[in-house]
Amino acid sequence: MAETEVAQVRFGIVGCANIARKVARAINLASNSILHAIASRSIDKAKQFASDNGLDPRVKIYGSYDQLLDDPSVEAVYMPLPTSLHVHWAVMAAQKGKHVLIEKPTALDVGELDTILEACQSNGLQFMDGSMWLHHPRTVKMKEMLFDSKLLGDVNYIYSTSTTSASPEFFENDIRVKGNLDSLGALGDLGWYCLGAVLWAKNYQLPTVVTALPDVTTNSDGVIVSCSASIQYKEPSSSGATTNAIIHCSFLADTSMDLTITGSKGSLNLNDFIIPQRESSASFEFTLGAKFVDLHIGWNVKPERVVVNCDELPQEGLMVEEFTRVVAGIRTTPGVLPDPKWPEISRKTQMLVDAVKKSVDLGCKPVYF
Amino acid sequence: MAETEVAQVRFGIVGCANIARKVARAINLASNSILHAIASRSIDKAKQFASDNGLDPRVKIYGSYDQLLDDPSVEAVYMPLPTSLHVHWAVMAAQKGKHVLIEKPTALDVGELDTILEACQSNGLQFMDGSMWLHHPRTVKMKEMLFDSKLLGDVNYIYSTSTTSASPEFFENDIRVKGNLDSLGALGDLGWYCLGAVLWAKNYQLPTVVTALPDVTTNSDGVIVSCSASIQYKEPSSSGATTNAIIHCSFLADTSMDLTITGSKGSLNLNDFIIPQRESSASFEFTLGAKFVDLHIGWNVKPERVVVNCDELPQEGLMVEEFTRVVAGIRTTPGVLPDPKWPEISRKTQMLVDAVKKSVDLGCKPVYF
Repeated sequence: MAETEVAQVRFGIVGCANIARKVARAINLASNSILHAIASRSIDKAKQFASDNGLDPRVKIYGSYDQLLDDPSVEAVYMPLPTSLHVHWAVMAAQKGKHVLIEKPTALDVGELDTILEACQSNGLQFMDGSMWLHHPRTVKMKEMLFDSKLLGDVNYIYSTSTTSASPEFFENDIRVKGNLDSLGALGDLGWYCLGAVLWAKNYQLPTVVTALPDVTTNSDGVIVSCSASIQYKEPSSSGATTNAIIHCSFLADTSMDLTITGSKGSLNLNDFIIPQRESSASFEFTLGAKFVDLHIGWNVKPERVVVNCDELPQEGLMVEEFTRVVAGIRTTPGVLPDPKWPEISRKTQMLVDAVKKSVDLGCKPVYF
Repeated sequence: MAETEVAQVRFGIVGCANIARKVARAINLASNSILHAIASRSIDKAKQFASDNGLDPRVKIYGSYDQLLDDPSVEAVYMPLPTSLHVHWAVMAAQKGKHVLIEKPTALDVGELDTILEACQSNGLQFMDGSMWLHHPRTVKMKEMLFDSKLLGDVNYIYSTSTTSASPEFFENDIRVKGNLDSLGALGDLGWYCLGAVLWAKNYQLPTVVTALPDVTTNSDGVIVSCSASIQYKEPSSSGATTNAIIHCSFLADTSMDLTITGSKGSLNLNDFIIPQRESSASFEFTLGAKFVDLHIGWNVKPERVVVNCDELPQEGLMVEEFTRVVAGIRTTPGVLPDPKWPEISRKTQMLVDAVKKSVDLGCKPVYF
């Protein structure tokens, strides 16, 4: 094995869900990782996945998750399992010394997530969830405008959606609407992004109070298929401003992924924050100091479009690179610890998911932090 | 007087508020109206207004509202008074036989509005509120896409904002934050548009229930300076879909006027629905059948931008033309009655404003229709 290959982080994929196809590609695109093995509960399904996706014949194919976790060559796992299975398999992976990249929602609640994080931490392993958009250079650029340059002033208001018009087949069969597999439904699958965007826009400050809106819709299993929530930051910033956010997630409306952040001096707006419309370049709009012209017959400014190229690696490739950069550092440099930033982001997002779920369960009562 | 001039509807403006400048211009731009008189409580202020705005020297200038209403040549009034004064002066105008074009919010509550509408109706007079955006050709085009062609499918979700970053001086002095002049604050001034947009998108069907969100902010007078609300249509459409809407209005965040309407098959989006960024042309985006491409690495469609020209008359000119078209019809054709569409739109919008206000006053309890 050449030296460059030795340096690559060897991935195992635990579960051949649809999203695994995208991440398998990302693992191969990223410079410092290689797909070493895949596992499904059924060897036939795993073989099919390998053949459907043209995987390198050297990729090991396992008919059980345990076999993959027992493979000492696997350094890190990507885990796109139903949410209810996360705590079992992620803890198992950590106990076997594998770094964990896991799909969102990370767990059914923060208690389960803490069990996973504890297992990773005590074994010196990196944890990260699969929120790809956080790794896009557009996200980095927006953050710079929000925090480094303070262009928009204090953030007053955040609005975020994640919706998709699910098919009748989805409502019949998908794990994300089954109470025994993923009781968080649209809140966990889609609301995760919206709540993550609110935290991101507030530099990971936790809110004061979260209140589900009365527009919640559940299916016959009691799983949330559509809901909204109000998130309030009542602690004023240095300038006295507070922040309110509204999020909306739904399996019942046509595809949307809107993010608007309004500050005292301007606003930022995009309609594809989770998955950019095009892979190689993405954009957002911002408006600074919008006022009306004399007689209020128009605006003094037009929104400006900022285009950010993403032509080296797609956002999921950048996610894998960031994850494996830390993993390789831990492996090669004694004393290097996992980066606490990523588990902290996951944990705060899960806390907000839990709070919305609790508010829904309480009939839209406020849930305080 | 030439015959064409005789046909023109003669307007009086009651109150020289800032917005009156825009409507004075619109009255002169529109083909079938002429500004005949203006009135302020102070003759000096009225003279100043006439001179500042270069009004024709033939425009009569009155130092009291009563004098203007007693001028038999005035056929119609435009009334941009503080909301608390609407019921008194609009009823007075109707009793003196003047058609009424009035600024929004139309009244402090629907009870007051009904008093005005009754006075107009019993005197055979047209009533309309000053929601200019309803008259823009872009609005007509969007309506066509929503209802005539059913391109977006059933409307599942509506989101609308109207925000502006008010100055310290505004908070100190403006009538819209004074409890004794306009107790509806941002809800009446800005939320009116958002609630009107929800009704418009639902073809003026009333909702089932309205609930204010806990993010309401009031000033020391108890006037709302920022609030949000959830509006639910629980009655399913023929296809079983229900509709949820969220509105947000605020004097505390930078200028925004977003409207998003999401249906089962597509969505429509614009960020300047109340006052278009440019007067002569406006646009909106729509996305139909958005899905992700294979591997979910992008979208199959990009939003399409629809540009609508508005180069003959600005939206406020079109509003005046629509108003005076009806007024001239009533005047010239015996048996022609006022168009009930416009008071009905105003009344339903006021009902929604009242419901949000009531929910705020009840501590965000739901208010049913």
